[in-house]
Amino acid sequence: MNMHTAPKRLVTQVVGTLALSLVTAAVSFAAQAPPAPPAASMIPADVTRTLAQLRAAAMADDNGHAIVEDLVTRIGPRMGGSPEEAQARTWAVDMFRRQGFTSVRVETFPVVLWQALAEQVDVIEPGFQSLRAVGIGGSPATPSGGVTAAVQRFGTLDELQSSTASLTGRIAFVDEPMARTQDGSGYGAAVRRRAGCSQAASRLGALACVIRSVGTNDDRFPHQGNGAPPGAMALPTLAISPPDADTLARLLARSTTPVRLRLLLDTRVVPDAESGNVLAEVAGRERSGEIVLAAAHLDSWSGAPGALDDGAGVAIITAAAKLINSLPVKPRRTIRILLAGSEETGGFGGRAYAAKHGADRHVLAAESDSGAGRVWQLGTGFGPGALPHARALAAALAPLAINLGNTSLPPGSGGTDISATVATGVPELTLDQDASLYFDVHHTANDTLERIDREALRQNIAAWAVMLYLAAEMGWDFRAAN
Amino acid sequence: MNMHTAPKRLVTQVVGTLALSLVTAAVSFAAQAPPAPPAASMIPADVTRTLAQLRAAAMADDNGHAIVEDLVTRIGPRMGGSPEEAQARTWAVDMFRRQGFTSVRVETFPVVLWQALAEQVDVIEPGFQSLRAVGIGGSPATPSGGVTAAVQRFGTLDELQSSTASLTGRIAFVDEPMARTQDGSGYGAAVRRRAGCSQAASRLGALACVIRSVGTNDDRFPHQGNGAPPGAMALPTLAISPPDADTLARLLARSTTPVRLRLLLDTRVVPDAESGNVLAEVAGRERSGEIVLAAAHLDSWSGAPGALDDGAGVAIITAAAKLINSLPVKPRRTIRILLAGSEETGGFGGRAYAAKHGADRHVLAAESDSGAGRVWQLGTGFGPGALPHARALAAALAPLAINLGNTSLPPGSGGTDISATVATGVPELTLDQDASLYFDVHHTANDTLERIDREALRQNIAAWAVMLYLAAEMGWDFRAAN
Repeated sequence: MNMHTAPKRLVTQVVGTLALSLVTAAVSFAAQAPPAPPAASMIPADVTRTLAQLRAAAMADDNGHAIVEDLVTRIGPRMGGSPEEAQARTWAVDMFRRQGFTSVRVETFPVVLWQALAEQVDVIEPGFQSLRAVGIGGSPATPSGGVTAAVQRFGTLDELQSSTASLTGRIAFVDEPMARTQDGSGYGAAVRRRAGCSQAASRLGALACVIRSVGTNDDRFPHQGNGAPPGAMALPTLAISPPDADTLARLLARSTTPVRLRLLLDTRVVPDAESGNVLAEVAGRERSGEIVLAAAHLDSWSGAPGALDDGAGVAIITAAAKLINSLPVKPRRTIRILLAGSEETGGFGGRAYAAKHGADRHVLAAESDSGAGRVWQLGTGFGPGALPHARALAAALAPLAINLGNTSLPPGSGGTDISATVATGVPELTLDQDASLYFDVHHTANDTLERIDREALRQNIAAWAVMLYLAAEMGWDFRAAN
Repeated sequence: MNMHTAPKRLVTQVVGTLALSLVTAAVSFAAQAPPAPPAASMIPADVTRTLAQLRAAAMADDNGHAIVEDLVTRIGPRMGGSPEEAQARTWAVDMFRRQGFTSVRVETFPVVLWQALAEQVDVIEPGFQSLRAVGIGGSPATPSGGVTAAVQRFGTLDELQSSTASLTGRIAFVDEPMARTQDGSGYGAAVRRRAGCSQAASRLGALACVIRSVGTNDDRFPHQGNGAPPGAMALPTLAISPPDADTLARLLARSTTPVRLRLLLDTRVVPDAESGNVLAEVAGRERSGEIVLAAAHLDSWSGAPGALDDGAGVAIITAAAKLINSLPVKPRRTIRILLAGSEETGGFGGRAYAAKHGADRHVLAAESDSGAGRVWQLGTGFGPGALPHARALAAALAPLAINLGNTSLPPGSGGTDISATVATGVPELTLDQDASLYFDVHHTANDTLERIDREALRQNIAAWAVMLYLAAEMGWDFRAAN
């Protein structure tokens, strides 16, 4: 839709979203740049028509849902370096071919695979009670008989870190809750305790760590996740679900005798496991050497079916690229889909991709890896001269109720799968998803298809189709220095 | 509140609820009985004032929540016959004494304890995928290496039962969903498959059963529960959570090769375990030999903290009786609290109570065992001559938004813990709870304190306080033949 012919309602809406972005964005272009012509005027009428078609097609399409449904049905949990992740690569190759993409290929790389074989936290005194627990990725195992000791609670990681009292012969329990936010910002703070508990508690002589699992859920699914590479953590560390943490905290508060736990964590480390990335392309019709990179990751945590993390991302970028691939005329540049392997266990796929494809001419990189909540904001890490392109993208996304946010994202904001590529100077952007419900199931066994809102998934696909098409068709330079 | 002085709003409300009961009740007194005087006129003004005080006190009280919180915090899961159930009895005795009741005692009885030591259902072909599973109570174990076989799905138990095709060498999978209803009526139909699958599938030569777990949840907590007494079921039977059942159904629908499962169920049967009931009383001031029995059960399923099932019931009847015990003048009759043991595993506590107390003069029996959802209806199994008492009770409950439902409940409607007592001719009543959310967590690890709505819990306590006080104070004969 061309801005000059747009109905007044839409103009008002865009102005409204710009005003909102002034309030919410850390750095807003409107506060810095001189008045500019309406952004959409940069987009020719035929492109505007194609964008409208893509939006409409996405909002009527079930292809994205079918993709993630098939992945979680046929494969389910697929930890980086596991046989299930290898099966997911085979699945992805078949799927990409069925969707009609070209240059479909697998690029393998070696990883260290850490697995938990037994994960158990029991209260044994004053009475027996089994808590729902998972081992933190990379944690050392307990001795085979487990660790049995009195537990001491810390309300926050800071409290443990600033403590000087001895924890000799004890288990440290970090019981810090996580904040629910639209932008998922509570996660960064909460996730520090996965490795931070071990670091701080070992200094005070503790035997092991129990943490309140990172998540906003109030059900008994504990949250998995990486602490540090195998060998880097001093203490066996397990996470218990939020209600279990609450139970333990209440028990500590009312028990007149010490509360003793028994922790058991048995692990296996496979030093030479194979992981891999899967790539596919919509070949550009004119400048096929210029790459617009769309990334998600194929692996999931060992106990998580990975519908939201990151089956949804796989579905979103694939279904968006498929809509573009189905157009009568392909865009100028090449759209490349990267399904990264072993993201969860340390971002190995993104680094392997950058190592192999650093010489490719990437014009833009973006990643979908925050679930399936609707996109509410566009963020960009473009050069300052590319600001008009950010505005043009935002104008094309506005009909999907997406506004322009931060236009000066620091490099690496876009996500783990593209950060190594972005570090080589490639511009990135973010299509920020509403993550307010994401951490209710993220990295848990409950990350299932049931948690996906089909309408929000379609809106994501529409946003990605619009963004990828514009970036590939318009020939814009997102690096532009001024 | 006396009906003659009640504001018009309340009269309208009561008439409205009576009209509703005509529609919903299987048998409604209004369709049979001649016009009667307003029911509340049977209640003297001083009693009416006391009822109002009890309702107000209950709605401002946190005692009920504190009771269930303490139970799930200190004890947690407490299967009938287990050491944890024994600790729960000790807890209950302490708690009853602190609440100020008299005649606090434990009455033990022997039970057979069935325990699952390992419960596992994995898809092994076409790819590996672990499903969330629990063993059905009383099920035989699998051989130590498990049962590995192709699986065949049946959409309903009826479909399996009417099948004549051989299942030799196969695992039967009954994938029948459960309906969500206010009155919990979906449970009865769904629960048949716990033992029914084994019975039907063994006839057709199957090796084992997998059932869609009984419940309305869409998260990955499988639902435990009793199938049959140990030794009575032919086939090892496990339940998988609803999303796992959906995944398995989708996999079967789209796999071109057989889907093979590996089931592992290791069990232990303790033939001579000890269980027990815990009793406490508010001694009647005039007719202390006449007993109004209020029952709940103390045990829970092995993996369930039992906040709703039946910590809530324990809290509701205890807190209601405590409010009455705190009145300056006790009611005429004795209120006896029965916390039954081993209800879940076969109703042993209720039968043991009836065997020991059959000669006691019970004037009424009621039970709270459907969670903590608000009470929406009163049901009665009184003699036909006691209909005015049902109406009077309903009038006293009407301010709590409770209407009169079925007044001709068949004996045993009141619940497992009182059914053996009711079978000796004791009248029963039900305070029917909204069970529409109950089966989202019932018999699962997610039956935690977080699932209790404090306001609804208070309303339950208010309803029980009103009902127990009236039944104990008024001297009514609920048996009355005409």
